[in-house]
Amino acid sequence: MKPQIKRTLSNFFFEYETPRQVLVRNKRVAVVCRIIQMGVLAYIIGWVFMYERGYQAIDIAIGSIFTKMKGVSFTNISGKERIWDAADLVFPEQGDSSFVVMTNYIATVGQKQDKCPELPDGKNKNKCMTDENCDEGKYKRTGNGHMTGRCISNTSTCEIYSWCPVEDDRQIPDPPILLTAENYTLFIKNSITFRQFNVVRSNLVESVNQSYINTCLYHPKTDPLCPIFRLGDIVERSGFNFSEIARVGGAIGVLIDWDCNLDLSIRHCKPKYEFYGLYGTAKNDKEEKPSLGYNFRYAKYYVENGVDKRTLMKVFGVRIDIIVHGRAGKFDIIPTLTAIGSGVGIFGVATVVCDLLLLYFVSKRDFYKNMKFKHTEIPEEKPALPQSQTEKDLPKVTYHSNLFSRRSL
Amino acid sequence: MKPQIKRTLSNFFFEYETPRQVLVRNKRVAVVCRIIQMGVLAYIIGWVFMYERGYQAIDIAIGSIFTKMKGVSFTNISGKERIWDAADLVFPEQGDSSFVVMTNYIATVGQKQDKCPELPDGKNKNKCMTDENCDEGKYKRTGNGHMTGRCISNTSTCEIYSWCPVEDDRQIPDPPILLTAENYTLFIKNSITFRQFNVVRSNLVESVNQSYINTCLYHPKTDPLCPIFRLGDIVERSGFNFSEIARVGGAIGVLIDWDCNLDLSIRHCKPKYEFYGLYGTAKNDKEEKPSLGYNFRYAKYYVENGVDKRTLMKVFGVRIDIIVHGRAGKFDIIPTLTAIGSGVGIFGVATVVCDLLLLYFVSKRDFYKNMKFKHTEIPEEKPALPQSQTEKDLPKVTYHSNLFSRRSL
Amino acid sequence: MKPQIKRTLSNFFFEYETPRQVLVRNKRVAVVCRIIQMGVLAYIIGWVFMYERGYQAIDIAIGSIFTKMKGVSFTNISGKERIWDAADLVFPEQGDSSFVVMTNYIATVGQKQDKCPELPDGKNKNKCMTDENCDEGKYKRTGNGHMTGRCISNTSTCEIYSWCPVEDDRQIPDPPILLTAENYTLFIKNSITFRQFNVVRSNLVESVNQSYINTCLYHPKTDPLCPIFRLGDIVERSGFNFSEIARVGGAIGVLIDWDCNLDLSIRHCKPKYEFYGLYGTAKNDKEEKPSLGYNFRYAKYYVENGVDKRTLMKVFGVRIDIIVHGRAGKFDIIPTLTAIGSGVGIFGVATVVCDLLLLYFVSKRDFYKNMKFKHTEIPEEKPALPQSQTEKDLPKVTYHSNLFSRRSL
Repeated sequence: MKPQIKRTLSNFFFEYETPRQVLVRNKRVAVVCRIIQMGVLAYIIGWVFMYERGYQAIDIAIGSIFTKMKGVSFTNISGKERIWDAADLVFPEQGDSSFVVMTNYIATVGQKQDKCPELPDGKNKNKCMTDENCDEGKYKRTGNGHMTGRCISNTSTCEIYSWCPVEDDRQIPDPPILLTAENYTLFIKNSITFRQFNVVRSNLVESVNQSYINTCLYHPKTDPLCPIFRLGDIVERSGFNFSEIARVGGAIGVLIDWDCNLDLSIRHCKPKYEFYGLYGTAKNDKEEKPSLGYNFRYAKYYVENGVDKRTLMKVFGVRIDIIVHGRAGKFDIIPTLTAIGSGVGIFGVATVVCDLLLLYFVSKRDFYKNMKFKHTEIPEEKPALPQSQTEKDLPKVTYHSNLFSRRSL
Repeated sequence: MKPQIKRTLSNFFFEYETPRQVLVRNKRVAVVCRIIQMGVLAYIIGWVFMYERGYQAIDIAIGSIFTKMKGVSFTNISGKERIWDAADLVFPEQGDSSFVVMTNYIATVGQKQDKCPELPDGKNKNKCMTDENCDEGKYKRTGNGHMTGRCISNTSTCEIYSWCPVEDDRQIPDPPILLTAENYTLFIKNSITFRQFNVVRSNLVESVNQSYINTCLYHPKTDPLCPIFRLGDIVERSGFNFSEIARVGGAIGVLIDWDCNLDLSIRHCKPKYEFYGLYGTAKNDKEEKPSLGYNFRYAKYYVENGVDKRTLMKVFGVRIDIIVHGRAGKFDIIPTLTAIGSGVGIFGVATVVCDLLLLYFVSKRDFYKNMKFKHTEIPEEKPALPQSQTEKDLPKVTYHSNLFSRRSL
Repeated sequence: MKPQIKRTLSNFFFEYETPRQVLVRNKRVAVVCRIIQMGVLAYIIGWVFMYERGYQAIDIAIGSIFTKMKGVSFTNISGKERIWDAADLVFPEQGDSSFVVMTNYIATVGQKQDKCPELPDGKNKNKCMTDENCDEGKYKRTGNGHMTGRCISNTSTCEIYSWCPVEDDRQIPDPPILLTAENYTLFIKNSITFRQFNVVRSNLVESVNQSYINTCLYHPKTDPLCPIFRLGDIVERSGFNFSEIARVGGAIGVLIDWDCNLDLSIRHCKPKYEFYGLYGTAKNDKEEKPSLGYNFRYAKYYVENGVDKRTLMKVFGVRIDIIVHGRAGKFDIIPTLTAIGSGVGIFGVATVVCDLLLLYFVSKRDFYKNMKFKHTEIPEEKPALPQSQTEKDLPKVTYHSNLFSRRSL
């Protein structure tokens, strides 16, 4: 048994198999075949390797954002002058990646818990004729409080128990109160981490030093790396009109896009800023018109003469969502080999196509078939297999008909 | 040299190689082999291409969310009536994707900086017998302030310097104060962007128009696209009981799932809403029981008679985390070719399996081995290698020149 | 026609083709070839399958985070004692994944809308000599309000209409007011969902029960799963010095990393916590020095004797961004077959390399070429093609020994 194993091993190590091939000398097929093969090769090298960088492992960034708004607005509402700075206007205050800059508001000062008539709205949803229209203790989806069961004739609306007086938001101030917010500046600090490659990077890249930050303002052409943005610019680059958005509010996405090739120097890994309108309502296929309108309410509470009161603010403003999208590639052996392996597979497809051409679409196809294929059939009647095999490569298969019939001659 | 190059080039372009094959006529092996091959083909076409859409490039969505809670609650605490609306109950106020709806609270009114005894807790952690148990200036992890060094005999706890009186949260109000929050409605606006395909889409899809939004309420069967949700429904669909979660708080994930095939019309790209409980404590394998309990504290500051005071609120509530998970596929040549290449590779595996069968598990295996393999060994003793070779493959091709010219002898 | 189809079908099902191969008995080439093939095999099995678990489908986690800060600080500012607890120090209050712990502040109490001189800064940016330097109604980027047009001789700065007095933040309190924040503890609750595998998991894994949470404190070696962190530890593990960061603020990323193999028991799916500094400024290649400095302003409003006032706080603090990075793998047939297919493709590369060796770098290359390739050229003049072919496959190789020795008979 032992020499057997030895021979098998030596055969395995000292012998290797390579497929036998036919060299087909047929201009048309060969040219077509070479073109296909070169196309596949060009695709693999040019597209997969060069353009898509298929030899790189990919990592997606983990990002952190800190924002700071700066600016001062001056308003003069019926003779009352007031100055607004960022601490008065930005929600939330701590510099999150998603925040709202107030540009307009409806303030309802001195609300207290009381009974008062519901607000009449244009669509008659809150209208009542008699007390029966006002179910005591019930709450309407469009209403502001619990109905007491009385219908107030003055306003033709139900009386409610609520924070009174009820906020009247039927008229949005026009022009917006804080139109000058257009000139506010937004400073964005962004840190990204590619964990797989152990790379941490900030949007304050090499060329953005302290003195540059002090004076620069983002511009896509002239200052594409400056991290300071004018609010009006952001709004207009995202397709909105500032005076419109300032009146009724709106939401804007700021995308910080990192596409880094870490095979090059890290200095080439730079952010790109993009702006677009959010919350579109679908109008037609593939096109979403960004919709206007963004508001929220908040209340400031206080006690006046022992009564709990609040000032309700309906805030209209520009909501900014900053989103980081980072992607880095770096040479890695696994994607390289996977790309090559898959490329060799596609090469196999090219061969299959060529063979189909050769065997089915060429006039001399029978000749080529004969060259490429060898038929084997165990001649069942002959017990002396080895002998028959001696001649094995001789095609004696007489009963085999059409395609290979000439052989049997 | 030049004709040499020319010949090489012409050989390269006008000649192509295709592997020589043996056609094995063995029913058992052939049937097994064809079944394997057809299985591979079915897998590649059916599964990889049809089901998994392997011919598509994939992009992950970037999403933005805006929420708005609506509702009114009425409470009557020891005769004091009070109405609560969304501005009183939702934290933070500006409509973030993650927010809390207050359903229960413990208010500690009028805290001021002072000395007072620590709260006795059931587990005797804050208990003291003598002043020695209270290290002056130290702070206990379970405590609320800095110990002054005195042990108060009344409560058997250390005296602390703190916001006094200390909040007593040993009893959570039951039933929860704002149980009616169940009927609040949540409006979710969601915008997603597939950057690679330049597609922006909102959850207010074509069929969700203004008049529909005014009246609809989400239901998984009847109104799966309505972006307005009842808080009680969200809680129950995520597996909680509303009165339980309202008392001690809890966290719920709302998943907006987009799975879009952009080879079809964008109209078919619609969101799906899912709800599940968060922050489970592991009980048994693969099953996490969502755990109840969510609270946080916040303080409202004011000045009373020249003394800084605060009202400390311990808020229990439903925390909702809205998460967007978007994925779109679109036909692209690279994944298509990669899938094909990889499929051809798997075809190769099928051939290897068939060959193993043929060469090792069939009774006439020696015969087939002989057919498939040709042995070559350089007959070291024979110097006239070419001659022996001349006859081997019997190259009759006389007109063929250089490389194989010896054959023509 | 029918028997034709039948024959084609029976041929297809009962006959299968396998490539003919040459067994090359050349020690050097064979050994090199086997080594390459075994390398490829080892790579596929060892690296792709074992190490990278290429047989698994991958899912990325969707995560939710809830945080709770605990701690008490005691300050004594010019004789005024004050106690601070988490409700006073953490922004925002509701336990978000991104929050700020105040460690230092500059309070400007009692600001009201008024005229006052601008703050003189060291760099003379706000300096003025005469009224002409102060454009009425204009606003400087470095300024705090609208200029009235007057230059105040006392401070040599323009008079502005603003919240007065203007905040003076030229001196940051040193040592930081709330240095004791170092001992605060942070509790993190994290829930992740692998949608594809329908797995929900929390960072309170099996070994983290209630009694353990009550006493434990995170330590990378001894308590790597304890979800309670000391703020000072977080700061130091991320490479900062606590007293420095407490003074001017700074941002820290806390990464919760899940790398789960769901083919094993879910119990092995555990989080890992990592800490790193954010917002670096690039100093040299691939190395980012985390930069200090994090602050924001917020205002508390009140009414005093009928005048609207505010207390402006410039808050310096530790900002913590908690980020979840989850990845789970589970056996799946598609990635398995893709990996195998791609591996077979790479095997093909090995064969190509061996063939290149054999056909171009071996002394007896012509012999091997002859063995491997069969030339075909349609002998246009000879009509009796089959005959010439009949003998072609006749194995004349007499010197070849064992397997084929019978041929030589």
